[in-house]
Amino acid sequence: MADGELAALAPQVEDGGVTGGRVHDSVVRILAGWVLGGRYAPGDTLPREEDLTSALGISRTSLREAVKVLAAKGLLEVRPRIGVRVRARQHWRLLDPAVLGWHPDLTRDPELIRSLIEARRVIEPAAAEFAARRCTQAQLEAIETAYLGMERAIPHDLVACCEADLAFHRAVVAASGNIVLTNLVGTIEAALRASFLLTTGLMQNQARTLSVHKAVLECIRAHDTAGARSTVNRLLDLAEEDSRRLA
Amino acid sequence: MADGELAALAPQVEDGGVTGGRVHDSVVRILAGWVLGGRYAPGDTLPREEDLTSALGISRTSLREAVKVLAAKGLLEVRPRIGVRVRARQHWRLLDPAVLGWHPDLTRDPELIRSLIEARRVIEPAAAEFAARRCTQAQLEAIETAYLGMERAIPHDLVACCEADLAFHRAVVAASGNIVLTNLVGTIEAALRASFLLTTGLMQNQARTLSVHKAVLECIRAHDTAGARSTVNRLLDLAEEDSRRLA
Repeated sequence: MADGELAALAPQVEDGGVTGGRVHDSVVRILAGWVLGGRYAPGDTLPREEDLTSALGISRTSLREAVKVLAAKGLLEVRPRIGVRVRARQHWRLLDPAVLGWHPDLTRDPELIRSLIEARRVIEPAAAEFAARRCTQAQLEAIETAYLGMERAIPHDLVACCEADLAFHRAVVAASGNIVLTNLVGTIEAALRASFLLTTGLMQNQARTLSVHKAVLECIRAHDTAGARSTVNRLLDLAEEDSRRLA
Repeated sequence: MADGELAALAPQVEDGGVTGGRVHDSVVRILAGWVLGGRYAPGDTLPREEDLTSALGISRTSLREAVKVLAAKGLLEVRPRIGVRVRARQHWRLLDPAVLGWHPDLTRDPELIRSLIEARRVIEPAAAEFAARRCTQAQLEAIETAYLGMERAIPHDLVACCEADLAFHRAVVAASGNIVLTNLVGTIEAALRASFLLTTGLMQNQARTLSVHKAVLECIRAHDTAGARSTVNRLLDLAEEDSRRLA
């Protein structure tokens, strides 16, 4: 990055020069945006400390604190005599809610969107099959409550619809009776929410989405394991169509 | 729990009555052990604060701090006018390394062991198939290095063998090229390590285990997706046999 470009970023730091929570957050967000947005690629070294502090109008302490936060999230590493380097993508804690929150534009990260759908295709049909085999009455009611929440929210309240959709998928996985899968899906919840918020507004076919959710519920209620698996796959087909429309 | 039983637990608190890190850790570990070990079941209420503090010889502050730690891990909740209650198992952060470390005896938690194997059967064969389809040369070399580490460690060094085994599975999932699956497997790593440490000593058939790992490596190298899937399933059959021997 040329010095001019660096200088142009300075106004992004709120209350420049004053130390405090807001400066800290701003510096973290700027550096995270450079990495997640691809301005600096894995293996690249960030500009020298003195150039960054003067361009951003921040103290060395603020910069170092921000680098420490991003190192803890696997984005950056401090290499002696080399400087601050962007780590390989496999180390990035991309499912961490904070990291997702710093992402400047998830729609421009097709690898993350593709990986998320692919991982859902691995986990969710299997979880739905387990749910059809062994869910309790209370777990079934939780799935139904979430479904009714979606029905109420469509089409006027997109945020409520996202949350109900998320609750539906969480309830299906909880009904699998597998505590490891349930914990794992908790880990991807922030990423799911981010992707649902991206695509819900695009849904041309909300009625179809709703009817497939209903079909998943009814298959689980009827202990139809094959049906549960195939209806969840249909849901994921719709999610994939929506995410392709983003690109 | 009767008062006598509570009193009998008091010696477990190191440096009883003195505040400090060790007391804090001991109190956390005792309460966590009660929950994870099943002395108090989900929905049960712990004894009253004054009974607990006097039985354990600790201050009210120490007790409350410990409860706060366990509430953050989903094990306990403070209910106004009711007291401290054990939460439903689905809220427990069972994959958290700290929670696993507090578990008094994983072999007596068949649900966790069963869920872990079942979740691995969902994720790992799919990840191996993706790896066979698209792993890079460097990713293949990481799998091979882990395999050679297992070969060197068997049969004399069980801990090194566990770590190499873990590195093998981590490398296969990393080679899937799916950043969400890679992140998820990072989440279950502590649980995998705990289960490997339980079962490695039992392995009657280390030579067979080693040969199936080798077969996984060779299928991935040959881009044999069906073979990668089926050899990983054979590995999981062996893991399941071992874990049954624990019960």
